[in-house]
Amino acid sequence: MLIGLTSDDTISAIATSIGEGGIGIVRVSGSKALVIADKLFVSKAGKKLTDVLSHKVLYGDIIDPDSGEKVDEVLLLIMRAPRSYTCEDIIEVHCHGGPVPLQRVLALTMKAGARLAEPGEFTKRAFLNGRLDLAQAEAVIDIIRAKTDTSLKAAIGNLSGQLSEQVKDLRYTILQMIAQLEAAIDFPEEDIEEAAANDVAKLIQEADLQLSALLATAQTGRILREGLATVIIGKPNVGKSSLLNALLREKRAIVTDIPGTTRDIIEEYVNIRGVPLKIIDTAGIRETADVVEKMGVERARELVGQADLILVLLDSSAPLSSEDKAVLALLSGKKAIVLINKSDLPGQLESEEVEKYTDDRLVLRISVELGQGLAELEQVIVDMVYSGQVCQGEAAFVSNVRQADALEQARGRLTEALATIEAGMPTDCIVVDLRAAWEKLGEITGDTVGEDIIDQIFTQFCIGK
Amino acid sequence: MLIGLTSDDTISAIATSIGEGGIGIVRVSGSKALVIADKLFVSKAGKKLTDVLSHKVLYGDIIDPDSGEKVDEVLLLIMRAPRSYTCEDIIEVHCHGGPVPLQRVLALTMKAGARLAEPGEFTKRAFLNGRLDLAQAEAVIDIIRAKTDTSLKAAIGNLSGQLSEQVKDLRYTILQMIAQLEAAIDFPEEDIEEAAANDVAKLIQEADLQLSALLATAQTGRILREGLATVIIGKPNVGKSSLLNALLREKRAIVTDIPGTTRDIIEEYVNIRGVPLKIIDTAGIRETADVVEKMGVERARELVGQADLILVLLDSSAPLSSEDKAVLALLSGKKAIVLINKSDLPGQLESEEVEKYTDDRLVLRISVELGQGLAELEQVIVDMVYSGQVCQGEAAFVSNVRQADALEQARGRLTEALATIEAGMPTDCIVVDLRAAWEKLGEITGDTVGEDIIDQIFTQFCIGK
Repeated sequence: MLIGLTSDDTISAIATSIGEGGIGIVRVSGSKALVIADKLFVSKAGKKLTDVLSHKVLYGDIIDPDSGEKVDEVLLLIMRAPRSYTCEDIIEVHCHGGPVPLQRVLALTMKAGARLAEPGEFTKRAFLNGRLDLAQAEAVIDIIRAKTDTSLKAAIGNLSGQLSEQVKDLRYTILQMIAQLEAAIDFPEEDIEEAAANDVAKLIQEADLQLSALLATAQTGRILREGLATVIIGKPNVGKSSLLNALLREKRAIVTDIPGTTRDIIEEYVNIRGVPLKIIDTAGIRETADVVEKMGVERARELVGQADLILVLLDSSAPLSSEDKAVLALLSGKKAIVLINKSDLPGQLESEEVEKYTDDRLVLRISVELGQGLAELEQVIVDMVYSGQVCQGEAAFVSNVRQADALEQARGRLTEALATIEAGMPTDCIVVDLRAAWEKLGEITGDTVGEDIIDQIFTQFCIGK
Repeated sequence: MLIGLTSDDTISAIATSIGEGGIGIVRVSGSKALVIADKLFVSKAGKKLTDVLSHKVLYGDIIDPDSGEKVDEVLLLIMRAPRSYTCEDIIEVHCHGGPVPLQRVLALTMKAGARLAEPGEFTKRAFLNGRLDLAQAEAVIDIIRAKTDTSLKAAIGNLSGQLSEQVKDLRYTILQMIAQLEAAIDFPEEDIEEAAANDVAKLIQEADLQLSALLATAQTGRILREGLATVIIGKPNVGKSSLLNALLREKRAIVTDIPGTTRDIIEEYVNIRGVPLKIIDTAGIRETADVVEKMGVERARELVGQADLILVLLDSSAPLSSEDKAVLALLSGKKAIVLINKSDLPGQLESEEVEKYTDDRLVLRISVELGQGLAELEQVIVDMVYSGQVCQGEAAFVSNVRQADALEQARGRLTEALATIEAGMPTDCIVVDLRAAWEKLGEITGDTVGEDIIDQIFTQFCIGK
């Protein structure tokens, strides 16, 4: 199915993040990579590239072949096929890390015969050439975009093949079921077919348990990957900005401003014991610290709609306002924690009063000012995310909706196969379902997957990866 | 003078720009670099680092030695002293290019015995270990921050030693003058001393010419490096925003948004035939395209004060307003070009009328709408920057104020030496001036320079370079 997707083009791209750095890399992959390097690179030691072994680094200059002009002083790294990321010949030009030298060198590689790589095309080639499977390729971008150490760990586990191995095990088991059923068909005795079907039914139940266990990681996997979309909501001056700052300061959390595909989108993450909270409307939170204004129930409704987790801040020193009550009424069906702040001040707000409006939700008394209750809040959030699971070692994680969907569908077909067996239907019908489950699982590793899905996955990558 | 500045510490930093990229590099330099790599890196092929030759790349994993946890799949590049950027042992860990894996690997190198590098410390070590002189080290940061191909070319020339060689030549000449004078002192005959002084006077005049030629490159060098601070000024709706866009579009100019030391400062550059124009107040220019408001003579005065070049836009289809006249009156002592825009529309504004207020400045009739006059405008700007100089090949460029100051002061001391000779003063007095000139020139290459100046230069670098 993948035949025809591989390409003879030699591709080139800036492989490091754009901006100011000590080092920047232009990476070229394909059959012409060494020819291109040979046109542009002059070794200081007078070495010829044809004589250079794989995995060697040379020091020299990039020269514009048209003008003879020196463009940059560089290191040239040579990795020959198949011992490279793409399994093709790769050369990396390590330039000074500024936008102009990198653009110049990139342009020269293109003039010398490369074409600009598409987003994710290096990794796509690694996949098409069998170096990575599709779940591993997805882990690559999860590593790059990891928000916390814990999300990095989950992604590294999948790059190492944790998820892929489990999926391959399951596919192998299903193939064995099919083989067993098909062997039984060849026997004239009915009871052999029945016995085989019964064996398979047991195996399906075991596989179903394994699938359930994997699917149970999907929610945590998604949160570790994308962050837990969190909104802090409450009246002006109730301490939203202080709470945000406290969460940032506590544990010296890693906050990463990760520019998206355009420079305009800056997302802010708070690291709560490895769980990334993606804070919605930080601008709003910080503004209202200065500007006393009505929060607006409409705005609250909008924010609540976008959030995985809502932290509602109430003021312990003031009675519940009608606005507070309106906000609490918005939480139905949502994960929310109600925080009674300023618990250090003389209280006018009893927990019992609040609990009338909170539907058995957790209500915590905190004082952001004194740092009271914050550790408890963090633990509650972490427990909520893992829901009893333990994230340890390099466990397999279902990390995105595509994988979860394929697993769900595979499980659906296994359930159908089981029903078919229980209904005493012909073996052929069982095999149809089993094959479908086997195919669905193959979509995760990319063994059975269409070009459109492959393209969709790799266009989410950055150029140069 | 530099003894004691070198350090035994092993330093580590993220060497690539921070953000999302395919590859990110953690660089470690110093005597413990290989020991550190050995603690963290496990080769997939089971190779031992001690057996690995210099300039080799290995494929493997970074493992947290405390937990045994895999942190990232990497390439490890080994460059042994003295064949490295710093002349020390260097290892580079090529990680997946995201903030979290890079931070994790950086933290591990520090736990394993490295300390975080200061800004520019790798290049500082290259300087202190004699791999680069100070002018070359300054060229490194100019390459990284180059705004156009032409500024890159100037910086590359200086990295190759163009400026340094001329300075070294001059210093050698001065040393020879001193030697000649001192030899003459030993002779009892007065006329030998006088003859020597006369010879030296001729040499000084030649050196002065050379210094003047170098100093003449300083302004162009500064502009190529920092950009020509340019303001586009004029009434609302006169076409400021269209002109800016036209300058950006023409020649498919490279515009680089280079984040400064803080992410907040975004500077916008327009590439005019290799000359970077640093456009002041682009936000203002773009805003006033939509919002019709008074420009305000006060705001104009403020902008004019910051600019190297002022482009005044007038409306050909309307008579000069009192505000236009007020703006034209601000230009005294400034480089400015007056542009009469909308020359395609029925005119009410004659060039003669405008020239009454422009002090013999160049007045161009243009139509941004039709693209008329823009090529001429560009040529005028380029001519203005080069003032008759030709920027070709890898010429020496005085690229910053420090270098220009040292050259000016050296020239001053040479002029004094000449006056001393002409006044018939004792040879010792001439030698004092010559020595001072020699020392001043040595500040450019860093042969004679204090620790404070060195520190000041390298703190302008980014961390990781």
